[in-house]
Amino acid sequence: MASAGAEPARRAAEGWAERLLAGEKRALARLITLIEERDPAASDVLRLLHPRVGQAHVVGVTGAAGAGKSTLITALARELRARGPSVAVLAVDPSSPLTGGALLGDRIRLGDLSTDPGLFFRSFASRGHLGGLSRAVADAVRAVDAAGYQAVLVETVGAGQSEVEVSELAHTTLVVLAPNLGDDVQAAKAGLLEVADVFAVNKADLPGARETAGEIRAMLGLGPARPWTPPVVELSARTGEGVAGLLEALERHRDFLVASGRWGEKLRRSAAHQLRDLLGEELLRAALARLEAEGSWQAWVEAVARRERDPYTLSEELARRLLAGATGRPRGEGEARGL
Amino acid sequence: MASAGAEPARRAAEGWAERLLAGEKRALARLITLIEERDPAASDVLRLLHPRVGQAHVVGVTGAAGAGKSTLITALARELRARGPSVAVLAVDPSSPLTGGALLGDRIRLGDLSTDPGLFFRSFASRGHLGGLSRAVADAVRAVDAAGYQAVLVETVGAGQSEVEVSELAHTTLVVLAPNLGDDVQAAKAGLLEVADVFAVNKADLPGARETAGEIRAMLGLGPARPWTPPVVELSARTGEGVAGLLEALERHRDFLVASGRWGEKLRRSAAHQLRDLLGEELLRAALARLEAEGSWQAWVEAVARRERDPYTLSEELARRLLAGATGRPRGEGEARGL
Repeated sequence: MASAGAEPARRAAEGWAERLLAGEKRALARLITLIEERDPAASDVLRLLHPRVGQAHVVGVTGAAGAGKSTLITALARELRARGPSVAVLAVDPSSPLTGGALLGDRIRLGDLSTDPGLFFRSFASRGHLGGLSRAVADAVRAVDAAGYQAVLVETVGAGQSEVEVSELAHTTLVVLAPNLGDDVQAAKAGLLEVADVFAVNKADLPGARETAGEIRAMLGLGPARPWTPPVVELSARTGEGVAGLLEALERHRDFLVASGRWGEKLRRSAAHQLRDLLGEELLRAALARLEAEGSWQAWVEAVARRERDPYTLSEELARRLLAGATGRPRGEGEARGL
Repeated sequence: MASAGAEPARRAAEGWAERLLAGEKRALARLITLIEERDPAASDVLRLLHPRVGQAHVVGVTGAAGAGKSTLITALARELRARGPSVAVLAVDPSSPLTGGALLGDRIRLGDLSTDPGLFFRSFASRGHLGGLSRAVADAVRAVDAAGYQAVLVETVGAGQSEVEVSELAHTTLVVLAPNLGDDVQAAKAGLLEVADVFAVNKADLPGARETAGEIRAMLGLGPARPWTPPVVELSARTGEGVAGLLEALERHRDFLVASGRWGEKLRRSAAHQLRDLLGEELLRAALARLEAEGSWQAWVEAVARRERDPYTLSEELARRLLAGATGRPRGEGEARGL
């Protein structure tokens, strides 16, 4: 079971997990970098952190560009910190000022919060392959959760536009709207109504805010009765007015999730998702290692490239043989045993 | 091996593949819809089409918004049709006029080309989960290739910004620039130089086009000597001037790929990628079916959700047992046999 070098790697991961659990932000930041880089060392730490995962309230913040998501997240973080809970902000939206301004450094964007030991900020560059971003953000949420941050704010792009589906990650989905964005209410009609747990109508000092909030409330009233009706909170992230009310709405939603059993259900769904992903990776890794060790993998690839074999039927055959304990050698060398 | 109902499904897929190979655009369009929806029936058709895949020249078209990608693709398609080859256009960029204008219908956008039997157009809505888009586009490329389209133009967003990495899909990556876009040359510096096989400087009738082309050529000249130096073609997609020259540059690149053996290498890489993806899916599908039939899957998920087991170690154990032919039953019921 243990490979050569596994023992030092395990000890390194243990030291790392300890520093992270002791509140060292640098250990947490480095772990998230390894998660982004899909470094196997990240899994070694995450497996040790697993018993600590599942405490944080994860809030996904989404909405159209120009609605003021980033300003609102900063205001929410400030309000939370004033009340006590520690906060982690994960910014995933590549068009966001929080993410896009990576060159500015966190200090300038977060102001006085940047030196607060109870606040952790991290943006995801989403350069290169986005394929792994969803997984990386889910693991980063687990990392900050295990590190003890009580509230996790994940800023993503609009629902349906992003590979990172905010409702997969979050307990509570906060949709941020603003008046006079034109498409906002249309976008709400198109799908945000289904994903939103709480609506924030930002820029409440501008004309039209009341009307925007009223339209959302009217649309919510048209649907069937539901166990949770998303509150619509008017506020100004810039002045801070109404931010406390938004925080209370988010807390009410968390209480609803716990009381209704949905919190536990979410945890089971997330566990099933994670176990399925990891099992799939592990099966493929082990299967490829076996086929390569046998020297048959390259022959199969050649057969597909020369169009002698179709990859659909071939992958079914290989999977059946591998899972039946057969060798996966080329056709004819033991096929009957595998089937 | 054959399940109940497999025979009618096989016959349906055969009829479909026949209609598609006979040039029925509706059969092709319907197959791509099933590919997007991840319907298993799509695999049944694709496995029959596999022997016909690998003939088309696949050109990925990328570049900044405002460079005129969509207009250029329409002009390229028109030029190709005038010379003879059949053309399939797959539009993946969600911000593109070709894709974004889905409400307009293909007819208006493509003008006289829309009634041309030698031209196929399809846009990808990229609604919902983008996770599967890369795979869907790769399968759609295979479908139009098998259907006999000789040139496939895939319009994607800029390199590094999209999950659909154009260079994974395409034989030839065409980067479209335009003068006075400001960020274009910066973007080129940042990564387009590495992915581009051909540069098109569009809007050559505007001031600054010559300078933009000159800057790209100068940057290309700075690098190490390479077997293929990307040509920089100035043109106007709007007037059509220079489009023939671009087409010749694309054809020269195809000839280079074939003569240098890179065409075959690309085919093998694509086959390896596809076989790996399909094998991973098939292993996971079969493994989950087995664990669920045993009744152990839900117990494992609960153990992870209750944080009694970490999913990293557990997935390794399960994979090892499944591939060793053991049962994957809960810990203690045969673990020694599995390990």
